[in-house]
Amino acid sequence: MAQRYVRVQNQEGKVYYGLLQPSFNVQVLDAPPWLHGQPTDLILEPDDYQILAPCAPSKIIAVGKNYANHAAEMGTQVPSEPLLFLKPPTTIIASETEIKYPYQSQRVDYEGELALIIGDRARNCTPEEAQTKIWGYTIANDVTARDLQQKDGQWTRAKGFDTFCPIGPWIVRELSPGAKLQTFINDDTNPVQSAGIDQMVFTPDFLVSYISQVMTLLPGDLVLTGTPEGVGPLHKGDRVRVEIEGIGRLENTVATH
Amino acid sequence: MAQRYVRVQNQEGKVYYGLLQPSFNVQVLDAPPWLHGQPTDLILEPDDYQILAPCAPSKIIAVGKNYANHAAEMGTQVPSEPLLFLKPPTTIIASETEIKYPYQSQRVDYEGELALIIGDRARNCTPEEAQTKIWGYTIANDVTARDLQQKDGQWTRAKGFDTFCPIGPWIVRELSPGAKLQTFINDDTNPVQSAGIDQMVFTPDFLVSYISQVMTLLPGDLVLTGTPEGVGPLHKGDRVRVEIEGIGRLENTVATH
Repeated sequence: MAQRYVRVQNQEGKVYYGLLQPSFNVQVLDAPPWLHGQPTDLILEPDDYQILAPCAPSKIIAVGKNYANHAAEMGTQVPSEPLLFLKPPTTIIASETEIKYPYQSQRVDYEGELALIIGDRARNCTPEEAQTKIWGYTIANDVTARDLQQKDGQWTRAKGFDTFCPIGPWIVRELSPGAKLQTFINDDTNPVQSAGIDQMVFTPDFLVSYISQVMTLLPGDLVLTGTPEGVGPLHKGDRVRVEIEGIGRLENTVATH
Repeated sequence: MAQRYVRVQNQEGKVYYGLLQPSFNVQVLDAPPWLHGQPTDLILEPDDYQILAPCAPSKIIAVGKNYANHAAEMGTQVPSEPLLFLKPPTTIIASETEIKYPYQSQRVDYEGELALIIGDRARNCTPEEAQTKIWGYTIANDVTARDLQQKDGQWTRAKGFDTFCPIGPWIVRELSPGAKLQTFINDDTNPVQSAGIDQMVFTPDFLVSYISQVMTLLPGDLVLTGTPEGVGPLHKGDRVRVEIEGIGRLENTVATH
């Protein structure tokens, strides 16, 4: 099994980066792994820690309409360049944490996505250079208040509510190029989204290169690579699970109040 | 003269928050002032420090079309609610630092603005509560690649280039309600923008309340309150100066290459 990199907090609230062992013990690192954190002698047992979102980015850059079939279902075309937007860091929550349904919206959608974790400062990179800046991969749910997205024009509010960026549960360093992304709602065994990540219009390398020509990417920053077709509503009390082959499952419940 | 709160770095690159004295010495604080930093015995003389942007926010929330005459000059109406967008923290530069003209744009505009610094965590605040969350005020220039703003639809790229958020030079805690905001280009003594900040459509208290009902604001976060009419282009080599009565002057040059 591929090495899984986690971020956890112990019972005193102290935060650690670590390696998740098959036993579910966490071997603590002395720094984030992309800042060359090395294993320490500290081991946390499953009862000793709570899993957090696997990184704490200075910014989250996301990309709209990066799967042709999703652009089509939204009644739009694939853009000629990546369409960038930002989510504030306060949107981030861990797997198994509740998504809060905002009072301002009557239509909140899931959007399962592959997320990239930046390892090195990236500025004005070519796609070849960009490849070396991608430290690893995790799963994201780009939760979106669809009604407010349409009403506001700018997507900031619709995609910026607290809890609207579940990520995790951990980071892996390698990913199969055709890995399948699937989203499931509640107990339905039929996925509502199912696509290979190789169906992206703009590849991860291209996206990181493109973004780096606008803004400097910093270690730990997060890039959301867009969602495939099949977006749809979440209701209070729903469980939503996004799976990517070779990473795992990101699972969250929508709060009932 | 009102107390001026600065952030500086010494010759070894160490960063401090401090109080700017009339002599231009800086009395160093032991933490950011909004985190109750107290004066220390360390004094930096003018040759010992370089001024930085006065805060290092976890996010920058900005508001579009918040002066009726600016909305009109853009050919649009004032929105019925504040129109939010984000600028990444990598846009921030200090006064007297260069704005870089991106190769992707042929039209980069200045936008002089009042900026609010958040002092306390703010979530779901009323306007009355929000008032107590505003720790102080500084000056901002919401630099915008106007051509890309129109092309992309989403404003993230157009407003997100490195160096596109000059702020400073310092923070003050109080501001006259009718303080005048003016923007000047090069040696022209006629301002290109001139408005009272009381001409805002949505007041600072209302904006902070509104934003706090979407995303939690954290100490040191920055809110840009919109620009009045008179936006226009910057050219390589231009100097742009935004002044707000009772704060000071934010001055930047556009790099020639």
